Amino acid sequence: METMKAAAKLEPGFGFELVEVPIPKPTAGEVLVKVRLSAICGTDVHIYQWDQWAQNRVKPPLIFGHEFCGEVAELGPGVKGVQIGDFVSVETHFTCGVCRFCRTGRGHICQEVKIVGVDRNGCFTEYVTVPAENLWVWNHDLDPEIAAILDPYGNAVHTALACDLAGARVLIIGVGPIGLAAIPVVKRAGAQQVICSDVSSYRLDLARRFGVDLAVDPRREDLYAKVREATGGQGVDVLLEMSGNEKAINDGFKCLINGGTASLLGIPSKPVSIDLADALIFKGATIYGINGRKMFETWYQAQALLEGGLDLTPLITHRFPLERIGEGLELMKAGQCGKIIIDPNGE
Amino acid sequence: METMKAAAKLEPGFGFELVEVPIPKPTAGEVLVKVRLSAICGTDVHIYQWDQWAQNRVKPPLIFGHEFCGEVAELGPGVKGVQIGDFVSVETHFTCGVCRFCRTGRGHICQEVKIVGVDRNGCFTEYVTVPAENLWVWNHDLDPEIAAILDPYGNAVHTALACDLAGARVLIIGVGPIGLAAIPVVKRAGAQQVICSDVSSYRLDLARRFGVDLAVDPRREDLYAKVREATGGQGVDVLLEMSGNEKAINDGFKCLINGGTASLLGIPSKPVSIDLADALIFKGATIYGINGRKMFETWYQAQALLEGGLDLTPLITHRFPLERIGEGLELMKAGQCGKIIIDPNGE
Amino acid sequence: METMKAAAKLEPGFGFELVEVPIPKPTAGEVLVKVRLSAICGTDVHIYQWDQWAQNRVKPPLIFGHEFCGEVAELGPGVKGVQIGDFVSVETHFTCGVCRFCRTGRGHICQEVKIVGVDRNGCFTEYVTVPAENLWVWNHDLDPEIAAILDPYGNAVHTALACDLAGARVLIIGVGPIGLAAIPVVKRAGAQQVICSDVSSYRLDLARRFGVDLAVDPRREDLYAKVREATGGQGVDVLLEMSGNEKAINDGFKCLINGGTASLLGIPSKPVSIDLADALIFKGATIYGINGRKMFETWYQAQALLEGGLDLTPLITHRFPLERIGEGLELMKAGQCGKIIIDPNGE
Amino acid sequence: METMKAAAKLEPGFGFELVEVPIPKPTAGEVLVKVRLSAICGTDVHIYQWDQWAQNRVKPPLIFGHEFCGEVAELGPGVKGVQIGDFVSVETHFTCGVCRFCRTGRGHICQEVKIVGVDRNGCFTEYVTVPAENLWVWNHDLDPEIAAILDPYGNAVHTALACDLAGARVLIIGVGPIGLAAIPVVKRAGAQQVICSDVSSYRLDLARRFGVDLAVDPRREDLYAKVREATGGQGVDVLLEMSGNEKAINDGFKCLINGGTASLLGIPSKPVSIDLADALIFKGATIYGINGRKMFETWYQAQALLEGGLDLTPLITHRFPLERIGEGLELMKAGQCGKIIIDPNGE
Repeated sequence: METMKAAAKLEPGFGFELVEVPIPKPTAGEVLVKVRLSAICGTDVHIYQWDQWAQNRVKPPLIFGHEFCGEVAELGPGVKGVQIGDFVSVETHFTCGVCRFCRTGRGHICQEVKIVGVDRNGCFTEYVTVPAENLWVWNHDLDPEIAAILDPYGNAVHTALACDLAGARVLIIGVGPIGLAAIPVVKRAGAQQVICSDVSSYRLDLARRFGVDLAVDPRREDLYAKVREATGGQGVDVLLEMSGNEKAINDGFKCLINGGTASLLGIPSKPVSIDLADALIFKGATIYGINGRKMFETWYQAQALLEGGLDLTPLITHRFPLERIGEGLELMKAGQCGKIIIDPNGE
Repeated sequence: METMKAAAKLEPGFGFELVEVPIPKPTAGEVLVKVRLSAICGTDVHIYQWDQWAQNRVKPPLIFGHEFCGEVAELGPGVKGVQIGDFVSVETHFTCGVCRFCRTGRGHICQEVKIVGVDRNGCFTEYVTVPAENLWVWNHDLDPEIAAILDPYGNAVHTALACDLAGARVLIIGVGPIGLAAIPVVKRAGAQQVICSDVSSYRLDLARRFGVDLAVDPRREDLYAKVREATGGQGVDVLLEMSGNEKAINDGFKCLINGGTASLLGIPSKPVSIDLADALIFKGATIYGINGRKMFETWYQAQALLEGGLDLTPLITHRFPLERIGEGLELMKAGQCGKIIIDPNGE
Repeated sequence: METMKAAAKLEPGFGFELVEVPIPKPTAGEVLVKVRLSAICGTDVHIYQWDQWAQNRVKPPLIFGHEFCGEVAELGPGVKGVQIGDFVSVETHFTCGVCRFCRTGRGHICQEVKIVGVDRNGCFTEYVTVPAENLWVWNHDLDPEIAAILDPYGNAVHTALACDLAGARVLIIGVGPIGLAAIPVVKRAGAQQVICSDVSSYRLDLARRFGVDLAVDPRREDLYAKVREATGGQGVDVLLEMSGNEKAINDGFKCLINGGTASLLGIPSKPVSIDLADALIFKGATIYGINGRKMFETWYQAQALLEGGLDLTPLITHRFPLERIGEGLELMKAGQCGKIIIDPNGE
Repeated sequence: METMKAAAKLEPGFGFELVEVPIPKPTAGEVLVKVRLSAICGTDVHIYQWDQWAQNRVKPPLIFGHEFCGEVAELGPGVKGVQIGDFVSVETHFTCGVCRFCRTGRGHICQEVKIVGVDRNGCFTEYVTVPAENLWVWNHDLDPEIAAILDPYGNAVHTALACDLAGARVLIIGVGPIGLAAIPVVKRAGAQQVICSDVSSYRLDLARRFGVDLAVDPRREDLYAKVREATGGQGVDVLLEMSGNEKAINDGFKCLINGGTASLLGIPSKPVSIDLADALIFKGATIYGINGRKMFETWYQAQALLEGGLDLTPLITHRFPLERIGEGLELMKAGQCGKIIIDPNGE
């Protein structure tokens, strides 16, 4: 039996182990993907640190990691639409396929969703099995570093394109990797002005590299005052909330113009207090809750934007071989990075 | 100079006085409306009781009251589109006409709005001046009691028709007069099932008269459990929030199906704590803040529904002459009523 | 080997034959459905008569018929979400599952679609094999005559609910079975007024049984004049075009109000001349082309409307055992019927 | 009485005359605008040539011309929202203000519309009176040549932004000035690929200057074949029809992908024959008729795109003093130009 190396959580507790495990076999409807590159997500840090969320959700032993690209290495029985050798990214939400949501093009809100690298073995390894319908086949000329981060980039596309952006003034609150990826998306979709806020100067600098018009650290400056000044007193037409932070959410709504639209992606860790009357009701605002990527409308949009020239490369700041993934996880914990690429074949 | 009787707040403090004042003259663009019937709104009770909101907003002396119908009695200079004798209801939000919102068919979110009976003299009297563009001209055969309550009925229409209702399961939280008016609206628009909740047994009884499928008192029954049971475990497709109550808002979101839509009209008196992650974000829900009536899309819809046979008469439970308006205000305060009609010409 | 009786086109040319053929076996992902009832569609008449369209599309030998309900009798390998004994209707468009349209909830416009009873063996028999994902499972209490006609009723739901109907004035051109089914749909969805036109007095009478406000025979009366009179000179807000007839299409557009919406379902047999400037462009109208049923959004809506009380029974005018299907095909040819039910187990 | 020079049609027939006429006075609600620059529209050529349309619509004597910018020189009674000296463009459709369309933010489809320079005196002169609500006030730093062409640019914005453009493949049929202006609009709004067609090599060259990906002369190349080739066999997601030509319209629909969207602005001079079944119905396409500019949503969008950096300057190819407007009209007739600017103060 052939084996592969993997970064796995073998039992409850902080950390992970590098192990050698058997290469899995695809079952009916599945394929085996040989991992080319993967990337670290904040969720991986939760699992690494074994925080409250991870303790409730994750059942070791588990190979973690869910952002990746690779080649189709083997087809399980009954697979159609993909071929061995196809270069693929993977939609990380595995859905039931038979519920009301799955049957109406809304698999992203399927209530039976399983996430690769969270609920079953993931990509911090050499081979992963996934349902064939979760594959997104690329022409071979897409940069594998970009193909590895379609999951967070797709989050950004879903969040941004829920709103009308042509000619819009846009505020992005929280420029972690998803918020950063949203900057070129909203710019390409015609935003007139893009303002962002974050408490990390490292990430505000990355935002500036993506060409944001104004980058605000709300601990040093009054975000509402800066937004009003930058928008001629009007506020923004569109709010993309990527922070999950109570104060930031309220500040964001305060900056929203009457009749404006907000997409909320950031997940607060507990209930937040909101001045609904002023934030939403009197304004006649519209709010969208955003979960994952529309399957697969978001993927078509994401690919089209890339083909049209959208450049995500400034988002990638580090690259490690799988053996040094621990360094990447620590960097993520510290917030001193954009996306970190992991190469299972690298040195 | 001719005079008229009026219920007015002459100075800060509880209550009102019945006074005799000069009949006003319409200025350029205005008309004088002879009041046929008016109705009492919760806002009038705030002014009557002189609560914190009223103290901050209202500047006595003021004739209050804003829900009414009447006949056009005199045209100011430059008025077009209406004629003396026209039977009219009045859109109570007087807008600036020149801002971005007013110029794009969204006067309902104009930031310079003045409300008749709150910011200038209102309808608890015999004559009122209003801008001609705020008139809605009826054929004379509409029941004047219905024509007097287009403002709250229009709120209900605006709130309900923001959502897709054909075949939908709908939860209405709070069945004061607006929530009650929403029941026949959602039923006519094709709702498959209508559930409502309120803490007033008087109003739950009125809701049953409007043909609601299930009426729940959340202090006696578990609303979430009842909704799940009534919807086969799925939850509702549409939530109309009319209560402004923190617990009710959270219960309502909990009852909403993934991908569902909520319209929020009820105004919380202070910030409310919401579990945004579960209520909205993971669900991929859409939320609309609702303010007033779309000017005048809502009015066309409201009229069309009435012409199609929608019956609001169960909503009207009391009628008093203007001289006895105090009795009506006390009934409203106690919540023991639907809409209360005030007749300035009655006995 | 067990056999079943079937109405089949054995070779090119007019007519069909009643034959005894082997019961088919479901392949991977398919199920075998035991037909309870089926219904005759206009398409079946094309195949029966062997007109130009049929000659180009149909490859004998073929069991025809595509509208039906039945019980799941056998599961092929890998089927999930349905069980033996389930009472089902069948979505008649079998899609590829892997194209851009199928992957974005728009299988109804898949370019590789195969139609049961047209491109592969259909339902004028005792057993049919279909892909499991095309099944719609009912609670057993739905009337099988209604379950047999979900295909045309679904067309009506798709066509109608593409438009905003609450408070709308609606014109339905062509009240064959789909146009007739649209009447209760638009009424339940809140239409204020429903007008229809057809050249068949039989079908205009059926339309009146469904409660249409005005039924016009355009060969006897001026449709445009009647619509203007009935709508106070305004025209209709919504046009549902079910005829495919050039003059009717132009008349329909002429009746549409500025800013109105039209759904086109009727298929013209050749290009039609349209006054685009007046019909559409100056009016600022919106037109939707409608094909099949949204998979499966339309099915959820169709079921919800039935559960809410929508009554299709007046649509069903005849019922024959399979052996007498020829009588039904001749009645359809003559237009002297609503829907005709075929019972493979009947006498 | 002060006078001004003007290009006017004094009586029916070909041509125009340069005349000296009194400066008009603004009535109630109107302002007097001192023309800075104007531009020639195709409509002006119709009036100049006195074709069938002009004979039916225009009542001489008339100063023609409707695209212009200028300064507010005098306010009529009751005007609010503008001031003397304001630098303005003018929405050329003067609406009734009291109909259903005007009252719901849809003045662009008002049935009582009067067009300046067609139904009342226009801008090929030094001063024009217009309703105050038709003014669009600029900051003084917008290039007056651009401010003079907001009418056709606004048509382009309205036509383009009716469709979802982020990541879309777009086909623009007909690149006269409006089609040309649509190119930078769709590019800024995120189009992945922009293809255009026209029979004028002059205008195809201008289209290339605006950065179109592919410019096709359908008399020399097969448009459908070129579009399929350029889009990987898929067709375009969005069609902007600016030609009004029967063959072009049919070619355009043929190029549209299933589920695609088409905006039709070009006005066919007579009914056109369309293969509705294949063009629209089987495709499940959506078609928008486009008339004028949304009042004033389109103007806000148009301004925002300009502020965001959209560059229309390649569109302007000629400039003449008012005295030489005849040369401009002849150039327009020949199609050898983009926009032609007319300067009433120029030499």
